[in-house]
Amino acid sequence: MASMMLSDCASSTATTAARILPFTGRPRTQLGLIKFHKFLDRVNFRLSIPKLPNFTVQSIQACTADTTGITSNETSVKVIDGKAVAKKIREEITAEVSQMRDAIGVVPGLAVILVGDRKDSATYVRNKKKACEDVGIASYEVRLPEESTEQEVLKFISDFNDDPLVHGILVQLPLPSHMNEQNILNAVSIEKDVDGFHPLNIGRLAMRGRDPMFVPCTPKGCIELLHRYGIGIKGKRAVVIGRSNIVGMPAALLLQREDATVSIVHSRTINPEEITRQADIIISAVGQPNMVRGSWIKPGAVIIDVGINPVEDATSPRGYRLVGDVCYEEACKVASAITPVPGGVGPMTIAMLLSNTLTSAKRAHNFG
Amino acid sequence: MASMMLSDCASSTATTAARILPFTGRPRTQLGLIKFHKFLDRVNFRLSIPKLPNFTVQSIQACTADTTGITSNETSVKVIDGKAVAKKIREEITAEVSQMRDAIGVVPGLAVILVGDRKDSATYVRNKKKACEDVGIASYEVRLPEESTEQEVLKFISDFNDDPLVHGILVQLPLPSHMNEQNILNAVSIEKDVDGFHPLNIGRLAMRGRDPMFVPCTPKGCIELLHRYGIGIKGKRAVVIGRSNIVGMPAALLLQREDATVSIVHSRTINPEEITRQADIIISAVGQPNMVRGSWIKPGAVIIDVGINPVEDATSPRGYRLVGDVCYEEACKVASAITPVPGGVGPMTIAMLLSNTLTSAKRAHNFG
Repeated sequence: MASMMLSDCASSTATTAARILPFTGRPRTQLGLIKFHKFLDRVNFRLSIPKLPNFTVQSIQACTADTTGITSNETSVKVIDGKAVAKKIREEITAEVSQMRDAIGVVPGLAVILVGDRKDSATYVRNKKKACEDVGIASYEVRLPEESTEQEVLKFISDFNDDPLVHGILVQLPLPSHMNEQNILNAVSIEKDVDGFHPLNIGRLAMRGRDPMFVPCTPKGCIELLHRYGIGIKGKRAVVIGRSNIVGMPAALLLQREDATVSIVHSRTINPEEITRQADIIISAVGQPNMVRGSWIKPGAVIIDVGINPVEDATSPRGYRLVGDVCYEEACKVASAITPVPGGVGPMTIAMLLSNTLTSAKRAHNFG
Repeated sequence: MASMMLSDCASSTATTAARILPFTGRPRTQLGLIKFHKFLDRVNFRLSIPKLPNFTVQSIQACTADTTGITSNETSVKVIDGKAVAKKIREEITAEVSQMRDAIGVVPGLAVILVGDRKDSATYVRNKKKACEDVGIASYEVRLPEESTEQEVLKFISDFNDDPLVHGILVQLPLPSHMNEQNILNAVSIEKDVDGFHPLNIGRLAMRGRDPMFVPCTPKGCIELLHRYGIGIKGKRAVVIGRSNIVGMPAALLLQREDATVSIVHSRTINPEEITRQADIIISAVGQPNMVRGSWIKPGAVIIDVGINPVEDATSPRGYRLVGDVCYEEACKVASAITPVPGGVGPMTIAMLLSNTLTSAKRAHNFG
């Protein structure tokens, strides 16, 4: 099943536009190389789609490895292996969970609330449950029918808030359209908001001298990849492409906390290529297949590509393949390091969710 | 009295390093043109000074209007008259307050808590009280002795939180060193946090689709000046110099909300001059006299100078004068518009505090 290949961003919301369009079995539009301005603001738009089972495959010109305007990098590019890093992190979490259980008899617990029957949401929830099992975190799942009331969902959240066995609560988005998503998310206790999307968390992330309870999973995964590959951030020029609440904005705040000089490029930016070309570190999270070309990249830059965009591919048995926001072939000629798609940032998101759940349990029990 | 000339930033904290050093009657150091890196992180540092009565006058080379490296602006510079704009805003507030009183019998109220006997803090509180009186806002002042306990302060905050006559609460900073400032500020009800410094407010300011209850006064004043002078923000390149919680960071978030492409320059930025020179709009809030030279400015850029730095001036009867972060004489040759110091951003801070208090009262009484 196609959607098995995709991982959603943090609890719920897809990172990129392309991941979140409905799957119609045929390309929605012949987009060609899609215009920057039109697409960059779509990042969050899954939230407004009520009930769509899967995603759309985009039709797009292949990234042709055009070298016009590219100053070639002299050394070979390092591929940042998110899959391997995520595996390592899951092993570390497994060890810590086991140590905690042995020492104080506490098992970290993650509760997931799923409302309705979206297939992609069901897949995301199943993946999270499986990931929890693998590291020894207990998972608690509540499935409610599409026609449930807001009050019913709030009641479950309230129960999980009070339940000492639960250290993290996720509400799988999108919710049915008759529910007020903001009300529901605000009801999750700040101590259990392992997604880190609560405004209080974001405020603390933005402020010097304050610390968030949790850092949102996908941006946390991006920074973790830089750390694990020994890539310095302090004093570096960083450009974040996309300003969504779930990836772009918190990624920019995290880079700033680590003393990078950060610029945010978005749908209203004039000449995004020029600004991006100044960056030592690029984090792209817009859901625009192959938007960032080789000519956008400074030689030796490090690229973290958050986009996971299915595009048409007649040579694939599935009829599509996944590409990032960055034209990988061109970027490899210029960058010093790059995350592939798939296998880059994607696997990090669930690893960070497990990490946040463990952190929450340790904090609740004053352990470690 | 020297400190009468200064206005503090929002409730409490001075915007700039130079404003907040102790007044010793002689220059602390012969700084010359002070190094960027050393000073840029001092912005918040008044918070850590326990009891210093006034401020230090810095010794600094005058900004010499050196034209080396400056591409001169062909048209004449527009001086952004913050004093006049603030006066206009106070008149508008006066009219609204009067209208509200006549219509529903409600007078907006601002409570200020002052602990200890710092002369500068007393002056700031007096200025705020006077500004309230002038527009018809009721002010409630609590003065507590230096040796008061945190619990006593918290009790007053709690009473004001519950008092329907009070729509805004300010705790004048810095607090005595035996008090936990974060605990005290967090106790102010989010509905009455007219400073807008609560992390929940900052989080909402950062997030798309969310709105803060209040916008911090000084950054709000900067954006208001741009609006009142008809200076477009959308699509512009903006550079904010300084990343303090009270000015730089929220100013960057505000510019981003208005669709500027924002970069934040700070103490760890390498080559801040190069980045600043790309900006159509510069907001500087670092407390470093004359740091931004003409050569840092793109011809035609708009400059909002938040710094208010007293520097030695033997020709002045007081022995000092106030300058901004930007070398005004040089900037006037390059920029299209600039705020002077004094008379630029300074008067806007209290005007925005009054505006936030009125907004709070209107919201509490569902008026207008």
